[in-house]
Amino acid sequence: MAKKDMKITLSSGSEPLTFTGQNPHGHAVQLSGNQSAASPMEAVLMAVAGCSAIDIELLLDKMRQPLDKLEVEVLGERVDDVPAVFHTITIHYKIFGDVKDAKAQKAVDMSIEKYCSVSQMLQASVKIIHSYEVLASK
Amino acid sequence: MAKKDMKITLSSGSEPLTFTGQNPHGHAVQLSGNQSAASPMEAVLMAVAGCSAIDIELLLDKMRQPLDKLEVEVLGERVDDVPAVFHTITIHYKIFGDVKDAKAQKAVDMSIEKYCSVSQMLQASVKIIHSYEVLASK
Repeated sequence: MAKKDMKITLSSGSEPLTFTGQNPHGHAVQLSGNQSAASPMEAVLMAVAGCSAIDIELLLDKMRQPLDKLEVEVLGERVDDVPAVFHTITIHYKIFGDVKDAKAQKAVDMSIEKYCSVSQMLQASVKIIHSYEVLASK
Repeated sequence: MAKKDMKITLSSGSEPLTFTGQNPHGHAVQLSGNQSAASPMEAVLMAVAGCSAIDIELLLDKMRQPLDKLEVEVLGERVDDVPAVFHTITIHYKIFGDVKDAKAQKAVDMSIEKYCSVSQMLQASVKIIHSYEVLASK
C-alpha cells in the first residue's frame, strides 16, 4: 500500500441498514439506507463539496484573501432508472469575507477544473456545474 | 427538484480545513483536509462500501438468508499525479451468518454490477475489484 493510498472499513450497526465507516485514525461516518443517517449518495455530494471546499480554502489562503467562512450548496439530480446515478451535480459556493471576486472565481475554477480529485473522478460520468458568490461576513 | 434528487449543504467548521456536511434531515458528516475527521476521498470509499452494503443486506433478506453482520474493507489506490484520483478500488466483503455461498456471491455481484449507484458512477474512471467471504457469526 503506497503512502497516499487509503483504507477504510465499514461495519453493520445495531439497526437494519445502518453502517459506520471508519478511517485508520478512527474517524467515523454514519451512513444508512433508511434515512436514520446520511445516505451513501448524499455522502458522495458531501465529498465533492468537501474536496473542493478544502482546495478553495487553501487557494484563497495562498492568494492572501481573508476568507471567513465557506458554505456550499449541492444538488444531485438522478436518472429515472436503476441504478439511480446522478446525471448532474450543481454546486454553489458562498464565499464569506473580504475576498476579491476575481480571486474567488480563480480558486473555484482551479478546484473544479484541476485539483479536486472527487469531482475529477465523477466528471467521467456526471455533468458538474458550479457557481459562486462573494458575500459580506455573517 | 424531483423527488429522488438530493440536496446537501456543507459549511466551514471552527478549525481550518474542517467542514460539516448536512442532509435535509439534519444528519451530519464531518470532513476535513487535516486528518481531524475523515477526508473527502475516504468518504468516497465509505460511500461505495455503504451503498453496496445496503444492497447486499436487502438482497440477502429477500433471499431469506440470515445475515448477522457485514464488514467491508476498502482500499483506494491513487495515481501519482494531481489530482490524485483513485485508479483502483478494491472491496472485500465479510458476510457473517449462516448464508449460502452461492447466495452471498449473487448478492455481492448484483450490487456491484447492477444496483450500487456509487460504484456505477465511479466505474467510468476507476477500476473496481471485489471479493467476499462467508464467515461464522462473531
